[in-house]
Amino acid sequence: MSFTVTILGSGAALPTKTRNPTSQYVECRGRKIVIDCGEGTQVQFRKYGVKFQKVEHILISHLHGDHYFGLVGLLSSMHLLGRKKSIEIYGPDGLKQILDLQLQYGGSRLSFEINFHTLDTTNSGIAFEDDKILIKHFPLSHKVPTNGFLIQEKEKERTLLIEKCQRDNIKIQFYQYLKRGENVLGDDGKEIRFEDYTLKVEKSKSYAFCSDTRYFEPIIEEIKDVNLLYHEATFTEDFRDRAKSTMHSTTKDAANIAKKASVGKLLLGHLSARYENGSQHELEAREIFENSVIVEDGDKFEVI
Amino acid sequence: MSFTVTILGSGAALPTKTRNPTSQYVECRGRKIVIDCGEGTQVQFRKYGVKFQKVEHILISHLHGDHYFGLVGLLSSMHLLGRKKSIEIYGPDGLKQILDLQLQYGGSRLSFEINFHTLDTTNSGIAFEDDKILIKHFPLSHKVPTNGFLIQEKEKERTLLIEKCQRDNIKIQFYQYLKRGENVLGDDGKEIRFEDYTLKVEKSKSYAFCSDTRYFEPIIEEIKDVNLLYHEATFTEDFRDRAKSTMHSTTKDAANIAKKASVGKLLLGHLSARYENGSQHELEAREIFENSVIVEDGDKFEVI
Repeated sequence: MSFTVTILGSGAALPTKTRNPTSQYVECRGRKIVIDCGEGTQVQFRKYGVKFQKVEHILISHLHGDHYFGLVGLLSSMHLLGRKKSIEIYGPDGLKQILDLQLQYGGSRLSFEINFHTLDTTNSGIAFEDDKILIKHFPLSHKVPTNGFLIQEKEKERTLLIEKCQRDNIKIQFYQYLKRGENVLGDDGKEIRFEDYTLKVEKSKSYAFCSDTRYFEPIIEEIKDVNLLYHEATFTEDFRDRAKSTMHSTTKDAANIAKKASVGKLLLGHLSARYENGSQHELEAREIFENSVIVEDGDKFEVI
Repeated sequence: MSFTVTILGSGAALPTKTRNPTSQYVECRGRKIVIDCGEGTQVQFRKYGVKFQKVEHILISHLHGDHYFGLVGLLSSMHLLGRKKSIEIYGPDGLKQILDLQLQYGGSRLSFEINFHTLDTTNSGIAFEDDKILIKHFPLSHKVPTNGFLIQEKEKERTLLIEKCQRDNIKIQFYQYLKRGENVLGDDGKEIRFEDYTLKVEKSKSYAFCSDTRYFEPIIEEIKDVNLLYHEATFTEDFRDRAKSTMHSTTKDAANIAKKASVGKLLLGHLSARYENGSQHELEAREIFENSVIVEDGDKFEVI
């Protein structure tokens, strides 16, 4: 099952005609996740052919409008289109109160349940976990309480060499241990080695999302070795003072985090509306971390 | 000074790629007014080249999301772009509370003042009045408390024939009476007739906005003889039952209101997302009221 990230909005606080505010759609081993939901996100879903009714989890990093003003509209449209399946929403303190108030004045009860999870913004923790994926949250450093997110595939089981097992009369009840990489003792007292009866599968992959934040080294341990990192890069170096006063990152800040965390690839977004394009960001990032890409609305990346 | 209506959003509850939710920009004798502000309205301003920083008044008809979810984002962008000039916002009970809560969690104080006016939604009244224009609100009939709006030019003064006044030695202090259409007595006891020294100016014009509402005859007296009427037409006749259950209007409902109110021209919008275009709406409307137009995002109309 693939692991992909679709950029629904790559802009910063001021949306432009080409860059919507922050939102991303992540599919990871069949789980369908939205990270942040700036104004206009529901139209971005339509524009890029992603079905929002199938979304199961929505993660909101913080309560600056460009990261969540589109959430209530998305939920309203899910309702109008008759959604029945419940949805999980994760966000900082205050988000539930805002949503509840808007829905109350809207005058209609939603056609589906919202399960709301208020996230700690001072300590990292697990937002969601099942047999396939793990979603962690961890604090960023911004003007208001803000979380970053890490989405990881769970370790996959080894692939059983079923014909070999049958030929050697390996008991079916041993299969689960062998697939988990454990040796077992046969009835004859001989050890049955998992390496003889299973194949290694590819390593589990991971994606981390860090927006918005100043340069903040504590995140390095949270995102260490991820295959793909999205990090905000609101400003180029010539606006370093502005980055500092607004608690945002420059491209070089982001690239330094990527380098120190030994990530596979770096995506850069949340570009200030003052830039016509991301060419300067790209130049500056690649001086420090070669595998850097400036994202645009509609881009889709595979986590590899 | 012109009187124009620009359609920023012509869609209904579900935005589509071509129809944003409801918003209109009205310029009337130099006054700059927004009516409703659905999600994504700030980007529509940019798209259609209208400067939102100059807006002075924002009128919100009701608290269904497709009529106001873009308001907080618009205000946030005004703030980020350094607006200093205060703004007047008019809306039903609840709107101020929602805005305050969102701004509170956003963590920054706006760079400008909001003067909030909670409007009565059960009786008509005056929302704003100065020497140039009058804005009235009046109740519509929808699932939640909803207002329609009437924007009227004030009666203009007659144009003084200044050279003739000077030639006949008409005292300057008489000018104001003549311009208002009043005769005055000269020092010689002779009547100075306003019609001899002034010209009639064109009649004051008016625009009415009615969205969302079921067919509701009490609005007829509120909008009688307006030059231009916008009335929602969410459904065509084949969805009359749906119109009834959702408290919306069909195109024929809207056309009947326009006819009974003897308006000059009828604009129809708030088309349900189920329609690919407005051709059926137009056919049905024109059977009853010939001067009907289906609006599209970006359309601009002069009130004549």
